[in-house]
Amino acid sequence: MTLIDWTRAETLYAAMGPAVEVSGGSAANTIAAVASLGGHAAFIGKVKDDQLGGIFRHDIVALGITFAALPSTDGLSTGRCLILVTPDAHRTMNTFLGVSADLGIEDVDATVVAAAHTTYLEGYLWDRPPAKQAFVTAAGMAHQAGRTVALSLSDPFCVDRHRDDFQQLVERHVDVLFANEDEIVSLYQEHSFDGALQRVRHHCPIAVLTRSEKGAVIVAGDDVHIVDAEKVPHVVDSTGAGDAYAAGFLWALARGMCLETCGRIAAVCAAEVISHVGARPETSLAELVRQKLG
Amino acid sequence: MTLIDWTRAETLYAAMGPAVEVSGGSAANTIAAVASLGGHAAFIGKVKDDQLGGIFRHDIVALGITFAALPSTDGLSTGRCLILVTPDAHRTMNTFLGVSADLGIEDVDATVVAAAHTTYLEGYLWDRPPAKQAFVTAAGMAHQAGRTVALSLSDPFCVDRHRDDFQQLVERHVDVLFANEDEIVSLYQEHSFDGALQRVRHHCPIAVLTRSEKGAVIVAGDDVHIVDAEKVPHVVDSTGAGDAYAAGFLWALARGMCLETCGRIAAVCAAEVISHVGARPETSLAELVRQKLG
Repeated sequence: MTLIDWTRAETLYAAMGPAVEVSGGSAANTIAAVASLGGHAAFIGKVKDDQLGGIFRHDIVALGITFAALPSTDGLSTGRCLILVTPDAHRTMNTFLGVSADLGIEDVDATVVAAAHTTYLEGYLWDRPPAKQAFVTAAGMAHQAGRTVALSLSDPFCVDRHRDDFQQLVERHVDVLFANEDEIVSLYQEHSFDGALQRVRHHCPIAVLTRSEKGAVIVAGDDVHIVDAEKVPHVVDSTGAGDAYAAGFLWALARGMCLETCGRIAAVCAAEVISHVGARPETSLAELVRQKLG
Repeated sequence: MTLIDWTRAETLYAAMGPAVEVSGGSAANTIAAVASLGGHAAFIGKVKDDQLGGIFRHDIVALGITFAALPSTDGLSTGRCLILVTPDAHRTMNTFLGVSADLGIEDVDATVVAAAHTTYLEGYLWDRPPAKQAFVTAAGMAHQAGRTVALSLSDPFCVDRHRDDFQQLVERHVDVLFANEDEIVSLYQEHSFDGALQRVRHHCPIAVLTRSEKGAVIVAGDDVHIVDAEKVPHVVDSTGAGDAYAAGFLWALARGMCLETCGRIAAVCAAEVISHVGARPETSLAELVRQKLG
């Protein structure tokens, strides 16, 4: 994943072959999966009043997700990611954050945050000072209402760019941390996964550490669970795996399930998303979870 | 296929589930297939300077197709078709023509028309008087340059709405007519395919009558060819079959191939497009034709 500016986005798009447009965005993929599980969700984020913004909103609202914010009328366009796929299914993601990076305190709806079991923060947006402030403000609102704050580290590149800030965020404001192996190792600059694991367990109430086909390690202080990945006959496209995993985990957690069950449901969700092209579920996750966990 | 206005398009889109956006349009699908065959093509048609218009242009230009016209800056939006698919693969197409229906004489580039072996007219646009005039004007330009004029009847509904006009167009201006069974029967209000066949053979130098899995009948006066459909293991989505068929036929005709070969190449192109979801080829048609016809 590479961040690109508008000029680069235009140049790259002009050089790209014919394309297909589909809604995405890490946290948006996560709530799409929550909706597929039958959960209720609201989205806080910025789009512009352009057609891509309209399409994004349509797809979110069509899933039954609340998206109350009005689109911005000036400034940058709606964000987009130009994804190039080689014939052997390798992907290069080029992300123009656009107006989404302009998230600020004014975008955070206190009523929505207070009403939610969990407020889930997407690490990709932990970049500009106003967005960072919006994260900390939202976390404060959630905690004041007795709610849970979750964060995905999103990308080793994000962690690298803002390591100290991320550590402070995790240690002071986050109840449930999602990170894959590269991200957690980068956060604590440890040499091994186990080293990072020992660090994070003292810093965050629940850490959910995913390791692709090796499964996940879920740590809550001295409570440790090792949950296998769900077997997939053929991995077609891993884009969105982490997003769907977080959805399954948080959906189950909000229903008071134990950490091991949260991990198993999360694995079922991730397995669905990596079985086809595209980052959002194509079959009912609610149905899948019923089949797999009874 | 149903034509819808803007209000209906908005209402329907609001009621639709999450969607995927992909470039389409009957004649545009045809030239996309011509490009895939390795042919050179230019597109004359209208989009607005909105994002869907930009995406349409991108996808056309990325195929190496010339699209010189500037997007319109006011008036209706870029056209679109809202396609609903049932779980058993039946489709309902709801078309908002948008600015595309505003085609007029001023949009027809005489140089482009004179340079092309064939000017291909899409029946869907044979609706408003300025577009009809543009068709007749373009046909006149082509003939003056010693070129060929082709027309697709596009849809029985179009034929029904403008039967007399279409008959005049076919008889006075068209050298190669594409029609499926329903369309040709409707054009001549005959009771049988054979009845319509006997009528059209005296009215148009070449009539290419397609009958899905029954294959095609190609008539040029007393010269008649029956060309089988290319076998397809599993028909996934028939959208764009006729568009790809026309592409293969016209590409081969422009290369001076005999009518039977034109029909065989056309059938190979249609078979590719109906083997997957989406109306444009996903594999190189040039390669496929090489494999099938040597």
